[in-house]
Amino acid sequence: MSTRINLSLDQVFDLAHRALTHNGMADDHARAIAEVITQGQRDECHSHGLYRVLVCVRSLRSGKVDPAAQPTLSQPAPSIVKVDAHFGYSLLAFQHGLPRLVEAAHKQGVAALVIRNCFHFSALWPEVEAIAAHGLVGMAMTPSHAWVAPEGGNRGVFGTNPLAFAWPRAGQEPFVFDFATSAIARGDIELHARQEKAIPLGWGLDADGVPTTDARAALDGAMQTFGGHKGSALAAMIELLAGALIGDLTSAESLTFDAGAGATPCHGELLLAFDPQRFGADDFEQGQQRAEQLFHAITGQGARLPSQRRFTARQRSQAEGVWVERSLLRDIEGLLT
Amino acid sequence: MSTRINLSLDQVFDLAHRALTHNGMADDHARAIAEVITQGQRDECHSHGLYRVLVCVRSLRSGKVDPAAQPTLSQPAPSIVKVDAHFGYSLLAFQHGLPRLVEAAHKQGVAALVIRNCFHFSALWPEVEAIAAHGLVGMAMTPSHAWVAPEGGNRGVFGTNPLAFAWPRAGQEPFVFDFATSAIARGDIELHARQEKAIPLGWGLDADGVPTTDARAALDGAMQTFGGHKGSALAAMIELLAGALIGDLTSAESLTFDAGAGATPCHGELLLAFDPQRFGADDFEQGQQRAEQLFHAITGQGARLPSQRRFTARQRSQAEGVWVERSLLRDIEGLLT
Repeated sequence: MSTRINLSLDQVFDLAHRALTHNGMADDHARAIAEVITQGQRDECHSHGLYRVLVCVRSLRSGKVDPAAQPTLSQPAPSIVKVDAHFGYSLLAFQHGLPRLVEAAHKQGVAALVIRNCFHFSALWPEVEAIAAHGLVGMAMTPSHAWVAPEGGNRGVFGTNPLAFAWPRAGQEPFVFDFATSAIARGDIELHARQEKAIPLGWGLDADGVPTTDARAALDGAMQTFGGHKGSALAAMIELLAGALIGDLTSAESLTFDAGAGATPCHGELLLAFDPQRFGADDFEQGQQRAEQLFHAITGQGARLPSQRRFTARQRSQAEGVWVERSLLRDIEGLLT
Repeated sequence: MSTRINLSLDQVFDLAHRALTHNGMADDHARAIAEVITQGQRDECHSHGLYRVLVCVRSLRSGKVDPAAQPTLSQPAPSIVKVDAHFGYSLLAFQHGLPRLVEAAHKQGVAALVIRNCFHFSALWPEVEAIAAHGLVGMAMTPSHAWVAPEGGNRGVFGTNPLAFAWPRAGQEPFVFDFATSAIARGDIELHARQEKAIPLGWGLDADGVPTTDARAALDGAMQTFGGHKGSALAAMIELLAGALIGDLTSAESLTFDAGAGATPCHGELLLAFDPQRFGADDFEQGQQRAEQLFHAITGQGARLPSQRRFTARQRSQAEGVWVERSLLRDIEGLLT
């Protein structure tokens, strides 16, 4: 008997939605979350696919997240759209803010979407892709929990602080990247620890600040940023822009707020949208061609565009559905009884 | 006899200004350039100090740069300020655009300054610092010449594509970084080649795309980005935002435009300004404190803030003037006869 079962994308959405609502999540939140979970499963980002249903339900049961918080919207300046998630999940807040962000970017040329007071577990690529689907260039960043040491230091200050970017391409998937400014995801170090496998140097420091290959020591010590002092500078920028600037928690404050619960981090998020038509004006078409020439210069020498693997998986999933481990399905179905 | 001579900052400015105007540069351009050259010398960024006078005069004599081009300003959207440098140097264009950028950021919350058709030789930190001096958060980026291969590739596509950021701090120097998305500056590889010294792995590839420690082979092959696929993604983002989006040249086009002259690159620049008062509103003061806590968490564990070395040099230079090599002064004085 195969250990995996084929599901259509509609079935994935339906399962996630039912498991979330059955466990007390309001319908609109459950829809917003089930949508990105379906996208994660579709793109074979398994840690952001159906597996997340388990994490969400655990967080719901911990009582930290408000499962029915209604986001409220304001526009404190013509180019700033602000959504207060009121300590619900971030995704419904993003959905509420997106149309106003798009409108502001069209009108002003560039605009920001600020999400405040949200619990945040999702990848950023679904959001920058949603911005790009409106023909806009998107950027997004968030802090997380203060696990990552600054270059030259030895104690956690930064979160894994992801940065995502999308450039819309006519008639095809956008150019998209979404990376952590930590050298590696915390989950990868946890996986190595569980499997008692060594980690490469460059991922973490032990409690004395010494570079280590011991995964457990790195979890007790501090993670490292990618790219030395440059990655460290970027991580600081994200604390400042998506924390201090927008009036929300830094990764250190978010970790304190969590108070050892090990829940999904609570903090803010900053997204930017640029309208290429307003920036490019008469040169818009030429700008589009320039971007395509850049992409061809990259792929033409055998290098990959970021997200290429994800888009290949997407095509496959859209044609054939997705394959899900029976054990994962059993765990999710267990949440429905 | 000492090989170095002490000059006041006014003397540095005056010398640079005289050498530039004597060689045909219009007074307003010469002032704008002499100002950042003085800042570079003051902060002991020697490659951006008085040494640049020689490079500027060489470029002037090559006839590529218009030494008197008058920048023209437009505002195609409320949050986009655009300055066309008309193939003069970028710095006067930046000075023309800055007041309008500041005004737009105050009014809209976030705004962009686009500089088009400029010759660009300067570091970006003087510009993001100038934005921060108005109490705004600044970001800046430019392409350059296509010397840098994408991760997984072997031929130059990206420029050294610097990214700079500044966060204003009350009563003290801002938090500032300014780094190339290449692993190292091209000048550093050139220096190794001249001195016949090996370069570390990670800086460059030979003409066959093989990682090399031979500086000359890397100059004939391709440079590498910092931080693997993440640095490569950032470099691509800068081509897209500060090239394709704003309707100006990518690094590949800029290199073609140069046509082997080896002149200062000609391309565009994108700057962003965020108003923390508009983003923070009632939480502005708390945001300022959060930023300070972040900085203290970094320096409190013995790590350095970026630009700290530069600010130390600045203090010293402001108190004692700067020390300049006699040979460099002789070369500059040679341009005055």
